[in-house]
Amino acid sequence: MSRGKLIVVSGFSGAGKGTVMKEIMNSYDNYALSVSATTRSPRPGEVEGISYFFKTDDEFRQMIEKDELIEYAGYVGHYYGTPKQFVEKNLDEGKDVFLEIEIQGALKVKEKYPDAVLMFITPPDAKTLRERLVNRGTESMDVIEKRLARAAEEANGVEAYDYIVINDNLQECVEMVDRIVKCEHNRTSERMSIINSIRNDLTK
Amino acid sequence: MSRGKLIVVSGFSGAGKGTVMKEIMNSYDNYALSVSATTRSPRPGEVEGISYFFKTDDEFRQMIEKDELIEYAGYVGHYYGTPKQFVEKNLDEGKDVFLEIEIQGALKVKEKYPDAVLMFITPPDAKTLRERLVNRGTESMDVIEKRLARAAEEANGVEAYDYIVINDNLQECVEMVDRIVKCEHNRTSERMSIINSIRNDLTK
Repeated sequence: MSRGKLIVVSGFSGAGKGTVMKEIMNSYDNYALSVSATTRSPRPGEVEGISYFFKTDDEFRQMIEKDELIEYAGYVGHYYGTPKQFVEKNLDEGKDVFLEIEIQGALKVKEKYPDAVLMFITPPDAKTLRERLVNRGTESMDVIEKRLARAAEEANGVEAYDYIVINDNLQECVEMVDRIVKCEHNRTSERMSIINSIRNDLTK
Repeated sequence: MSRGKLIVVSGFSGAGKGTVMKEIMNSYDNYALSVSATTRSPRPGEVEGISYFFKTDDEFRQMIEKDELIEYAGYVGHYYGTPKQFVEKNLDEGKDVFLEIEIQGALKVKEKYPDAVLMFITPPDAKTLRERLVNRGTESMDVIEKRLARAAEEANGVEAYDYIVINDNLQECVEMVDRIVKCEHNRTSERMSIINSIRNDLTK
Protein backbone atom coordinates (compact mmCIF):
# COMPACT_ATOMS: atom_id res chain seq x y z
CA MET A 1 0.00 0.00 0.00
CA SER A 2 1.36 3.41 -0.95
CA ARG A 3 1.52 6.25 1.51
CA GLY A 4 -1.28 8.81 1.38
CA LYS A 5 -1.00 12.35 0.14
CA LEU A 6 -1.17 15.48 2.25
CA ILE A 7 -3.73 17.97 0.90
CA VAL A 8 -3.64 21.47 2.32
CA VAL A 9 -6.78 23.54 1.87
CA SER A 10 -6.91 27.27 2.47
CA GLY A 11 -9.25 30.01 1.37
CA PHE A 12 -10.86 33.32 2.17
CA SER A 13 -12.95 33.42 5.34
CA GLY A 14 -16.42 32.77 3.97
CA ALA A 15 -15.21 30.76 0.98
CA GLY A 16 -16.99 27.75 2.43
CA LYS A 17 -13.86 25.68 3.20
CA GLY A 18 -15.45 24.10 6.27
CA THR A 19 -18.55 22.99 4.37
CA VAL A 20 -16.44 21.67 1.48
CA MET A 21 -14.30 19.65 3.92
CA LYS A 22 -17.38 18.25 5.66
CA GLU A 23 -18.89 17.15 2.32
CA ILE A 24 -15.58 15.63 1.18
CA MET A 25 -15.43 13.52 4.33
CA ASN A 26 -19.09 12.49 4.02
CA SER A 27 -18.94 11.70 0.30
CA TYR A 28 -15.72 9.74 -0.22
CA ASP A 29 -13.68 7.02 1.41
CA ASN A 30 -9.96 7.07 1.97
CA TYR A 31 -9.78 10.63 3.22
CA ALA A 32 -8.93 11.80 6.73
CA LEU A 33 -9.36 15.31 8.06
CA SER A 34 -6.66 16.64 10.32
CA VAL A 35 -7.98 18.14 13.55
CA SER A 36 -6.18 21.34 14.49
CA ALA A 37 -5.21 22.43 17.94
CA THR A 38 -6.24 25.97 18.85
CA THR A 39 -6.29 28.36 21.76
CA ARG A 40 -9.47 30.10 20.59
CA SER A 41 -12.81 29.43 22.30
CA PRO A 42 -15.29 26.98 20.80
CA ARG A 43 -18.08 28.45 18.63
CA PRO A 44 -21.62 27.17 19.23
CA GLY A 45 -21.83 23.55 18.03
CA GLU A 46 -18.11 22.92 17.85
CA VAL A 47 -16.97 19.68 19.46
CA GLU A 48 -13.64 18.96 21.18
CA GLY A 49 -11.53 16.49 19.18
CA ILE A 50 -13.72 16.82 16.08
CA SER A 51 -13.88 20.55 15.31
CA TYR A 52 -10.62 21.30 17.12
CA PHE A 53 -8.51 20.26 20.06
CA PHE A 54 -9.18 23.26 22.28
CA LYS A 55 -6.05 24.12 24.28
CA THR A 56 -5.04 26.70 26.85
CA ASP A 57 -2.08 28.90 25.99
CA ASP A 58 0.05 26.82 28.37
CA GLU A 59 -0.97 23.51 26.81
CA PHE A 60 -0.31 24.87 23.32
CA ARG A 61 3.16 26.07 24.34
CA GLN A 62 3.95 22.58 25.63
CA MET A 63 2.98 21.02 22.28
CA ILE A 64 5.37 23.43 20.56
CA GLU A 65 8.18 22.57 22.97
CA LYS A 66 7.67 18.82 22.51
CA ASP A 67 7.73 19.25 18.69
CA GLU A 68 4.25 17.76 18.42
CA LEU A 69 3.06 20.27 15.78
CA ILE A 70 3.85 20.26 12.04
CA GLU A 71 3.20 23.98 11.99
CA TYR A 72 1.53 26.60 14.12
CA ALA A 73 0.61 30.23 13.61
CA GLY A 74 -1.21 33.10 15.22
CA TYR A 75 -4.44 34.40 13.67
CA VAL A 76 -6.72 37.11 15.07
CA GLY A 77 -5.12 36.81 18.51
CA HIS A 78 -5.20 33.00 18.81
CA TYR A 79 -2.89 30.12 18.03
CA TYR A 80 -3.68 27.36 15.58
CA GLY A 81 -1.49 24.32 14.96
CA THR A 82 -1.41 20.93 13.24
CA PRO A 83 -0.71 17.92 15.51
CA LYS A 84 1.88 15.73 13.78
CA GLN A 85 0.92 12.29 15.09
CA PHE A 86 -2.55 12.13 13.52
CA VAL A 87 -1.25 13.18 10.11
CA GLU A 88 1.64 10.70 10.06
CA LYS A 89 -0.52 7.82 11.26
CA ASN A 90 -3.11 8.34 8.51
CA LEU A 91 -0.55 8.90 5.73
CA ASP A 92 1.15 5.66 6.76
CA GLU A 93 -2.20 3.88 6.55
CA GLY A 94 -2.50 5.09 2.92
CA LYS A 95 -5.12 7.74 3.62
CA ASP A 96 -5.04 11.13 1.94
CA VAL A 97 -5.05 13.65 4.76
CA PHE A 98 -6.70 17.07 4.42
CA LEU A 99 -5.41 20.01 6.46
CA GLU A 100 -7.55 23.14 6.56
CA ILE A 101 -5.16 25.95 7.46
CA GLU A 102 -4.26 29.47 6.38
CA ILE A 103 -1.59 30.23 3.81
CA GLN A 104 1.36 31.02 6.07
CA GLY A 105 0.93 27.67 7.85
CA ALA A 106 0.46 25.91 4.53
CA LEU A 107 3.77 27.21 3.24
CA LYS A 108 5.50 25.87 6.36
CA VAL A 109 3.84 22.47 5.78
CA LYS A 110 5.07 22.49 2.16
CA GLU A 111 8.64 22.92 3.43
CA LYS A 112 8.33 19.79 5.56
CA TYR A 113 6.14 17.84 3.09
CA PRO A 114 7.29 18.91 -0.42
CA ASP A 115 4.80 16.50 -2.06
CA ALA A 116 1.85 18.14 -0.30
CA VAL A 117 -0.80 19.51 -2.65
CA LEU A 118 -1.89 23.07 -1.88
CA MET A 119 -5.43 24.18 -2.81
CA PHE A 120 -7.01 27.57 -2.30
CA ILE A 121 -10.80 27.67 -2.26
CA THR A 122 -12.42 30.88 -3.38
CA PRO A 123 -15.92 32.15 -4.03
CA PRO A 124 -16.37 33.32 -7.64
CA ASP A 125 -16.36 37.00 -6.62
CA ALA A 126 -16.20 39.48 -3.71
CA LYS A 127 -20.00 39.92 -3.62
CA THR A 128 -20.53 36.22 -2.89
CA LEU A 129 -17.81 36.31 -0.23
CA ARG A 130 -19.58 39.11 1.66
CA GLU A 131 -23.01 37.43 1.40
CA ARG A 132 -21.68 34.15 2.80
CA LEU A 133 -20.09 35.79 5.83
CA VAL A 134 -23.29 37.69 6.59
CA ASN A 135 -25.52 34.63 6.09
CA ARG A 136 -23.37 32.44 8.34
CA GLY A 137 -24.80 34.47 11.20
CA THR A 138 -22.23 33.34 13.74
CA GLU A 139 -20.48 36.68 13.94
CA SER A 140 -21.42 40.29 14.50
CA MET A 141 -21.28 42.75 11.58
CA ASP A 142 -18.26 44.29 13.33
CA VAL A 143 -16.33 41.04 13.13
CA ILE A 144 -17.50 40.46 9.53
CA GLU A 145 -16.27 43.89 8.46
CA LYS A 146 -12.90 43.12 10.09
CA ARG A 147 -12.75 39.76 8.31
CA LEU A 148 -13.53 41.32 4.94
CA ALA A 149 -10.89 43.95 5.51
CA ARG A 150 -8.46 41.12 6.23
CA ALA A 151 -9.60 38.94 3.32
CA ALA A 152 -7.41 40.65 0.73
CA GLU A 153 -4.43 39.84 2.95
CA GLU A 154 -5.63 36.25 3.43
CA ALA A 155 -4.65 35.51 -0.16
CA ASN A 156 -1.05 36.69 0.31
CA GLY A 157 1.21 33.89 -0.83
CA VAL A 158 -1.43 32.07 -2.88
CA GLU A 159 0.87 32.28 -5.92
CA ALA A 160 2.79 29.35 -4.39
CA TYR A 161 -0.35 27.18 -4.36
CA ASP A 162 -0.92 24.34 -6.81
CA TYR A 163 -4.64 24.85 -7.42
CA ILE A 164 -7.33 27.49 -7.01
CA VAL A 165 -10.75 25.85 -6.79
CA ILE A 166 -13.88 27.96 -7.19
CA ASN A 167 -16.68 27.25 -4.74
CA ASP A 168 -19.72 28.52 -6.61
CA ASN A 169 -21.77 25.32 -6.52
CA LEU A 170 -20.88 23.26 -3.43
CA GLN A 171 -21.30 19.84 -5.05
CA GLU A 172 -19.18 20.79 -8.09
CA CYS A 173 -16.48 22.19 -5.83
CA VAL A 174 -16.43 19.03 -3.71
CA GLU A 175 -16.18 16.84 -6.82
CA MET A 176 -13.37 18.95 -8.24
CA VAL A 177 -11.37 18.71 -5.00
CA ASP A 178 -11.82 14.92 -5.01
CA ARG A 179 -10.80 14.69 -8.68
CA ILE A 180 -7.71 16.79 -8.17
CA VAL A 181 -6.57 14.49 -5.36
CA LYS A 182 -7.18 11.38 -7.47
CA CYS A 183 -5.38 12.94 -10.47
CA GLU A 184 -2.45 13.85 -8.21
CA HIS A 185 -1.97 10.13 -7.54
CA ASN A 186 -0.98 9.85 -11.23
CA ARG A 187 2.01 12.17 -10.70
CA THR A 188 5.24 10.89 -12.20
CA SER A 189 7.01 10.94 -8.83
CA GLU A 190 4.42 8.50 -7.48
CA ARG A 191 4.37 6.25 -10.55
CA MET A 192 8.02 5.85 -11.57
CA SER A 193 8.21 2.42 -9.93
CA ILE A 194 5.84 1.02 -12.61
CA ILE A 195 8.01 2.37 -15.44
CA ASN A 196 11.18 1.09 -13.80
CA SER A 197 9.63 -2.33 -13.33
CA ILE A 198 8.64 -2.52 -17.04
CA ARG A 199 12.11 -1.36 -18.09
CA ASN A 200 13.70 -4.05 -15.93
CA ASP A 201 11.45 -6.78 -17.35
CA LEU A 202 12.19 -5.71 -20.94
CA THR A 203 15.96 -5.65 -20.52
CA LYS A 204 16.15 -8.97 -18.63
CA MET B 1 -12.50 32.91 -23.58
CA SER B 2 -9.27 31.59 -22.14
CA ARG B 3 -6.64 29.96 -24.31
CA GLY B 4 -6.60 26.17 -24.46
CA LYS B 5 -3.99 23.94 -22.91
CA LEU B 6 -1.42 21.89 -24.78
CA ILE B 7 -1.45 18.23 -23.66
CA VAL B 8 1.45 16.08 -24.79
CA VAL B 9 0.87 12.32 -24.69
CA SER B 10 3.66 9.79 -25.02
CA GLY B 11 4.00 6.15 -24.11
CA PHE B 12 5.58 2.82 -24.90
CA SER B 13 4.80 1.39 -28.34
CA GLY B 14 1.85 -0.84 -27.59
CA ALA B 15 0.65 1.20 -24.61
CA GLY B 16 -2.52 1.97 -26.56
CA LYS B 17 -1.91 5.72 -26.98
CA GLY B 18 -3.63 5.81 -30.36
CA THR B 19 -6.77 4.10 -29.06
CA VAL B 20 -6.85 6.34 -25.99
CA MET B 21 -6.57 9.46 -28.18
CA LYS B 22 -9.33 8.22 -30.51
CA GLU B 23 -11.66 7.59 -27.55
CA ILE B 24 -10.85 10.97 -26.00
CA MET B 25 -11.79 12.72 -29.23
CA ASN B 26 -14.99 10.66 -29.60
CA SER B 27 -16.09 11.04 -25.97
CA TYR B 28 -15.53 14.69 -25.08
CA ASP B 29 -15.99 18.15 -26.58
CA ASN B 30 -13.46 20.91 -26.52
CA TYR B 31 -10.46 18.78 -27.46
CA ALA B 32 -8.48 18.88 -30.69
CA LEU B 33 -5.93 16.31 -31.80
CA SER B 34 -2.82 17.60 -33.49
CA VAL B 35 -2.05 15.80 -36.76
CA SER B 36 1.65 15.08 -37.15
CA ALA B 37 3.65 15.30 -40.33
CA THR B 38 5.76 12.22 -41.10
CA THR B 39 7.98 10.78 -43.80
CA ARG B 40 7.03 7.19 -42.98
CA SER B 41 4.65 5.25 -45.23
CA PRO B 42 0.97 4.92 -44.31
CA ARG B 43 -0.07 1.74 -42.48
CA PRO B 44 -3.22 -0.02 -43.71
CA GLY B 45 -6.25 2.12 -42.86
CA GLU B 46 -4.34 5.34 -42.15
CA VAL B 47 -5.77 8.43 -43.83
CA GLU B 48 -3.87 11.49 -45.09
CA GLY B 49 -4.68 14.60 -43.02
CA ILE B 50 -6.34 12.55 -40.26
CA SER B 51 -3.78 9.91 -39.22
CA TYR B 52 -0.82 11.96 -40.44
CA PHE B 53 0.23 14.39 -43.10
CA PHE B 54 2.41 12.05 -45.15
CA LYS B 55 5.38 13.94 -46.57
CA THR B 56 8.37 13.16 -48.75
CA ASP B 57 11.78 13.84 -47.26
CA ASP B 58 12.01 16.97 -49.44
CA GLU B 59 8.64 18.30 -48.34
CA PHE B 60 9.51 17.66 -44.68
CA ARG B 61 12.82 19.51 -45.05
CA GLN B 62 10.96 22.50 -46.48
CA MET B 63 8.61 22.61 -43.46
CA ILE B 64 11.67 22.69 -41.19
CA GLU B 65 13.26 25.50 -43.19
CA LYS B 66 10.07 27.59 -43.12
CA ASP B 67 9.79 27.09 -39.32
CA GLU B 68 6.38 25.48 -39.72
CA LEU B 69 7.04 22.76 -37.10
CA ILE B 70 6.95 23.13 -33.30
CA GLU B 71 9.31 20.16 -33.05
CA TYR B 72 10.51 17.31 -35.21
CA ALA B 73 12.55 14.19 -34.57
CA GLY B 74 13.77 11.05 -36.24
CA TYR B 75 12.42 7.68 -35.11
CA VAL B 76 13.17 4.26 -36.61
CA GLY B 77 14.53 5.87 -39.79
CA HIS B 78 11.68 8.36 -40.39
CA TYR B 79 10.91 11.94 -39.47
CA TYR B 80 7.93 13.02 -37.38
CA GLY B 81 6.98 16.64 -36.68
CA THR B 82 4.23 18.83 -35.25
CA PRO B 83 2.82 21.49 -37.58
CA LYS B 84 2.59 24.77 -35.66
CA GLN B 85 -0.36 26.43 -37.35
CA PHE B 86 -3.01 23.86 -36.37
CA VAL B 87 -1.93 23.89 -32.72
CA GLU B 88 -1.90 27.69 -32.40
CA LYS B 89 -5.26 28.10 -34.14
CA ASN B 90 -6.98 25.63 -31.81
CA LEU B 91 -5.35 26.96 -28.63
CA ASP B 92 -6.49 30.47 -29.61
CA GLU B 93 -10.04 29.14 -30.05
CA GLY B 94 -9.92 27.86 -26.44
CA LYS B 95 -9.55 24.19 -27.34
CA ASP B 96 -7.24 21.87 -25.42
CA VAL B 97 -4.91 20.38 -28.01
CA PHE B 98 -3.48 16.88 -27.68
CA LEU B 99 -0.14 16.02 -29.25
CA GLU B 100 0.83 12.35 -29.45
CA ILE B 101 4.62 12.34 -29.76
CA GLU B 102 7.64 10.59 -28.29
CA ILE B 103 9.53 11.89 -25.30
CA GLN B 104 12.39 13.72 -26.99
CA GLY B 105 9.92 15.72 -29.08
CA ALA B 106 7.75 16.31 -26.01
CA LEU B 107 10.65 17.84 -24.11
CA LYS B 108 11.28 20.24 -27.01
CA VAL B 109 7.59 21.20 -26.94
CA LYS B 110 7.81 21.86 -23.19
CA GLU B 111 10.65 24.33 -23.83
CA LYS B 112 8.45 26.32 -26.22
CA TYR B 113 5.21 25.82 -24.27
CA PRO B 114 6.18 25.73 -20.57
CA ASP B 115 2.51 25.37 -19.53
CA ALA B 116 2.10 22.19 -21.60
CA VAL B 117 1.02 19.14 -19.59
CA LEU B 118 3.09 16.02 -20.26
CA MET B 119 1.46 12.59 -19.82
CA PHE B 120 3.06 9.19 -20.32
CA ILE B 121 0.67 6.30 -20.96
CA THR B 122 1.84 2.89 -19.86
CA PRO B 123 0.41 -0.60 -19.67
CA PRO B 124 0.39 -1.96 -16.10
CA ASP B 125 3.33 -4.31 -16.81
CA ALA B 126 5.74 -5.65 -19.45
CA LYS B 127 3.65 -8.78 -20.10
CA THR B 128 0.65 -6.67 -21.19
CA LEU B 129 2.91 -4.53 -23.38
CA ARG B 130 4.17 -7.58 -25.29
CA GLU B 131 0.65 -9.03 -25.69
CA ARG B 132 -0.71 -5.80 -27.13
CA LEU B 133 2.04 -5.50 -29.73
CA VAL B 134 1.50 -9.10 -30.82
CA ASN B 135 -2.30 -8.77 -30.91
CA ARG B 136 -2.17 -5.57 -32.98
CA GLY B 137 -1.12 -7.83 -35.83
CA THR B 138 0.12 -4.99 -38.03
CA GLU B 139 3.78 -5.86 -37.66
CA SER B 140 5.96 -8.95 -38.06
CA MET B 141 7.42 -10.66 -34.97
CA ASP B 142 10.82 -9.32 -36.10
CA VAL B 143 9.60 -5.72 -35.89
CA ILE B 144 7.82 -6.44 -32.60
CA GLU B 145 11.00 -7.83 -31.03
CA LYS B 146 12.89 -4.72 -32.18
CA ARG B 147 10.17 -2.50 -30.71
CA LEU B 148 10.26 -4.31 -27.39
CA ALA B 149 14.03 -4.04 -27.31
CA ARG B 150 13.59 -0.30 -27.88
CA ALA B 151 10.75 0.11 -25.39
CA ALA B 152 13.02 0.43 -22.39
CA GLU B 153 14.71 3.35 -24.17
CA GLU B 154 11.34 4.85 -25.11
CA ALA B 155 10.85 5.82 -21.47
CA ASN B 156 14.12 7.75 -21.26
CA GLY B 157 13.32 11.25 -20.02
CA VAL B 158 9.93 10.33 -18.54
CA GLU B 159 11.09 11.69 -15.17
CA ALA B 160 10.38 15.17 -16.60
CA TYR B 161 6.74 14.28 -17.28
CA ASP B 162 3.86 15.56 -15.17
CA TYR B 163 1.73 12.41 -15.12
CA ILE B 164 2.02 8.67 -15.74
CA VAL B 165 -1.38 7.24 -16.62
CA ILE B 166 -1.90 3.48 -16.57
CA ASN B 167 -3.86 2.03 -19.47
CA ASP B 168 -5.18 -1.20 -18.03
CA ASN B 169 -8.87 -0.61 -18.67
CA LEU B 170 -9.33 1.64 -21.75
CA GLN B 171 -12.40 3.50 -20.47
CA GLU B 172 -10.83 4.22 -17.08
CA CYS B 173 -7.67 5.46 -18.76
CA VAL B 174 -9.65 7.75 -21.07
CA GLU B 175 -11.62 9.17 -18.14
CA MET B 176 -8.45 9.76 -16.15
CA VAL B 177 -6.81 11.64 -19.03
CA ASP B 178 -9.93 13.82 -19.37
CA ARG B 179 -10.04 14.47 -15.62
CA ILE B 180 -6.38 15.43 -15.47
CA VAL B 181 -6.90 18.00 -18.23
CA LYS B 182 -9.95 19.46 -16.47
CA CYS B 183 -8.11 19.54 -13.12
CA GLU B 184 -5.17 21.29 -14.79
CA HIS B 185 -7.53 24.16 -15.64
CA ASN B 186 -7.67 24.81 -11.87
CA ARG B 187 -3.94 25.54 -11.74
CA THR B 188 -3.04 28.69 -9.84
CA SER B 189 -1.32 30.23 -12.88
CA GLU B 190 -4.60 30.01 -14.78
CA ARG B 191 -6.81 31.24 -11.92
CA MET B 192 -4.89 34.14 -10.35
CA SER B 193 -7.06 36.70 -12.18
CA ILE B 194 -10.06 35.65 -10.03
CA ILE B 195 -8.11 36.16 -6.79
CA ASN B 196 -6.75 39.48 -7.97
CA SER B 197 -10.22 40.64 -8.91
CA ILE B 198 -11.59 39.74 -5.45
CA ARG B 199 -8.65 41.47 -3.77
CA ASN B 200 -9.29 44.60 -5.81
CA ASP B 201 -13.00 44.63 -4.95
CA LEU B 202 -12.30 44.21 -1.22
CA THR B 203 -9.75 47.02 -1.04
CA LYS B 204 -11.82 49.51 -3.05
